[in-house]
Amino acid sequence: MNPDTLRQQTESYLHDRIPISRAMGVAVGSCEIGGFLLTAPLEENHNHLGTAFGGSLGAVATLAGYALLWVRMAEPDCHIVIRESAIRYFHPVTAEIRARCLEPDPAAFAPFMTRFRETSRARLRLTVEIAEGDRTCVRFHGEFVAMKV
Amino acid sequence: MNPDTLRQQTESYLHDRIPISRAMGVAVGSCEIGGFLLTAPLEENHNHLGTAFGGSLGAVATLAGYALLWVRMAEPDCHIVIRESAIRYFHPVTAEIRARCLEPDPAAFAPFMTRFRETSRARLRLTVEIAEGDRTCVRFHGEFVAMKV
Repeated sequence: MNPDTLRQQTESYLHDRIPISRAMGVAVGSCEIGGFLLTAPLEENHNHLGTAFGGSLGAVATLAGYALLWVRMAEPDCHIVIRESAIRYFHPVTAEIRARCLEPDPAAFAPFMTRFRETSRARLRLTVEIAEGDRTCVRFHGEFVAMKV
Repeated sequence: MNPDTLRQQTESYLHDRIPISRAMGVAVGSCEIGGFLLTAPLEENHNHLGTAFGGSLGAVATLAGYALLWVRMAEPDCHIVIRESAIRYFHPVTAEIRARCLEPDPAAFAPFMTRFRETSRARLRLTVEIAEGDRTCVRFHGEFVAMKV
């Protein structure tokens, strides 16, 4: 699929199915391998200090992990849910939220897909980083579960 | 302060300072000791399965911890931020989100307040639970940092 079409389809999917993503202004910046990026403006997501609200950062990171897995699996008859996550806030985010989901290690992704196809259910850990310039402000680890419908 | 006035003031504070809380429909159900409760409707916060979106659950839990600490400290010249958190999703939340922040243990809260007053900075761990009926669906642990302005 054309990269821009995939990006737009993924964004529409998030907005239609998870409406708070629209209220947060979440956009899909890129679905490309190694550069999977979700963004959200500070205006809708600031806190009492004028920096990004921790809950919004966690929600955008959760969406980034979810969306990457949805796109990489490319399995229409599949539900993905989050089982657990942990997030650390190192520095305030002072401008647009830019959440990059790291590509899963192929050594983990291949057995994950095998298990999903064989047992209809598999889990995978993903990492999302939110940076400003060269500085990592937030790191998120989430365990996602994919289930055949 | 009258409990209902405190509840309304806390809700207005969240909506004014953290605007996504208004978009999420977050309401302060109670500020009372032992029953601190934030709610949010499923309508604004559902996912692709019609249950509560994990990112919304995390955001409401973060707000519950933040708001409890703000109310219990009752220190106007204080900023509170979140340093890290972890969340586990045991069961889907299928109706209104009801996030209860547990009261901090007095054996932790008293030294936290002493440290805050002496050094202008202190950290405290809080637990938030989201339940439906008797069933705990989500458990959140967050470390919050209070700083004198």
